[in-house]
Amino acid sequence: MERTQIPETTIHRLPVYLRCLLQAQQDRMPVISSVGIAEMAGTNAAQVRKDLSYLGELGTRGIGYDVEALIEHISKSLGITGLRRVAIVGYGRLGGALKSYTGFSDRGFDIIAVFDADPAKIGTDADGVIIRSTDELETVLAENRVEIVVMATPAGVTQELADRVTGAGIKAILNLAPVRLHVPDGVAVRQVCMSTDLQILSFYLAQDGMK
Amino acid sequence: MERTQIPETTIHRLPVYLRCLLQAQQDRMPVISSVGIAEMAGTNAAQVRKDLSYLGELGTRGIGYDVEALIEHISKSLGITGLRRVAIVGYGRLGGALKSYTGFSDRGFDIIAVFDADPAKIGTDADGVIIRSTDELETVLAENRVEIVVMATPAGVTQELADRVTGAGIKAILNLAPVRLHVPDGVAVRQVCMSTDLQILSFYLAQDGMK
Repeated sequence: MERTQIPETTIHRLPVYLRCLLQAQQDRMPVISSVGIAEMAGTNAAQVRKDLSYLGELGTRGIGYDVEALIEHISKSLGITGLRRVAIVGYGRLGGALKSYTGFSDRGFDIIAVFDADPAKIGTDADGVIIRSTDELETVLAENRVEIVVMATPAGVTQELADRVTGAGIKAILNLAPVRLHVPDGVAVRQVCMSTDLQILSFYLAQDGMK
Repeated sequence: MERTQIPETTIHRLPVYLRCLLQAQQDRMPVISSVGIAEMAGTNAAQVRKDLSYLGELGTRGIGYDVEALIEHISKSLGITGLRRVAIVGYGRLGGALKSYTGFSDRGFDIIAVFDADPAKIGTDADGVIIRSTDELETVLAENRVEIVVMATPAGVTQELADRVTGAGIKAILNLAPVRLHVPDGVAVRQVCMSTDLQILSFYLAQDGMK
């Protein structure tokens, strides 16, 4: 299976399609058309058909896609047929907000470890998980067979901690700290940067003002 | 100025270039080459030159870009030469984490209003701003001449509140709630969805596992 051939933009839309299909499943729809998916996902039917064609021969012309089968297929592509084991490094306000967010487990993610450097926090409860010291990063990541690490750390210490995370063999990082991470080849990084999002919105406002 | 002609992918890279240039300015570099920007931004020099060419005739062949002038130029394009006025709707853990994040003002954003529906929170201090009731949404947004609204609300009430936000004339929304917003034409929305980011990371892990 040459999944490396799937365009990045398609990969980024798969989670959106999955969310739409789960909604369709909840609404007890056995079959859905590309037009139906497109409407829910805010795109067009041709795009949906093209994106899904990368996953194989799915759907029946003139009928549509079997909802259950397509959910299973996309979930498999996204590697979330079981729960993925996630750790959060940094239990400040943002880390705390993430840990308490109940939506992750529904989407295939289980936050099983939380780290902080503050002695006052270490050993205390973080919504059902005991906060561990960043000194123990490598051993706790290994013990818990963590697959994805979320960096919710202060900017200044993020690269250093990320180096230890990748050194411990982690291949996927979601970075919420406002720094660009340098990671070894073969490590996937997603950067969440709300300042950047605000600047992009500001661009559109600036355009609007010039009309 | 036909700024509508700038490709969306270029727009999304402008904040990254700006961050690199501010770093160069801090390092007291008067001039920077496209190679220099590319290295800091994690892209290639041809991409940098192409992206910046959309903003006009900038830089001198063989010399590079004047750092100060380019900062000013990109800031103007992004509409952040002054501070943009931002409000947060929903002062839960995520809204609280955002309000306390000091990085926004450095990047051109001033959070001047915070809303919540919880009577226990209304009227109390949120890091220097008094929390207002969502009942007063329209009047407070107008009084404060808010330009961008951040939705940090529970999923179930987000669309309804966003309808009131756009009804009050707001043209830019950063949505942190795990729902896809429907907004009138002419309103720009950026969606932050960390579950989606985790699923994309999971995709790469799944691929890696198949090698």
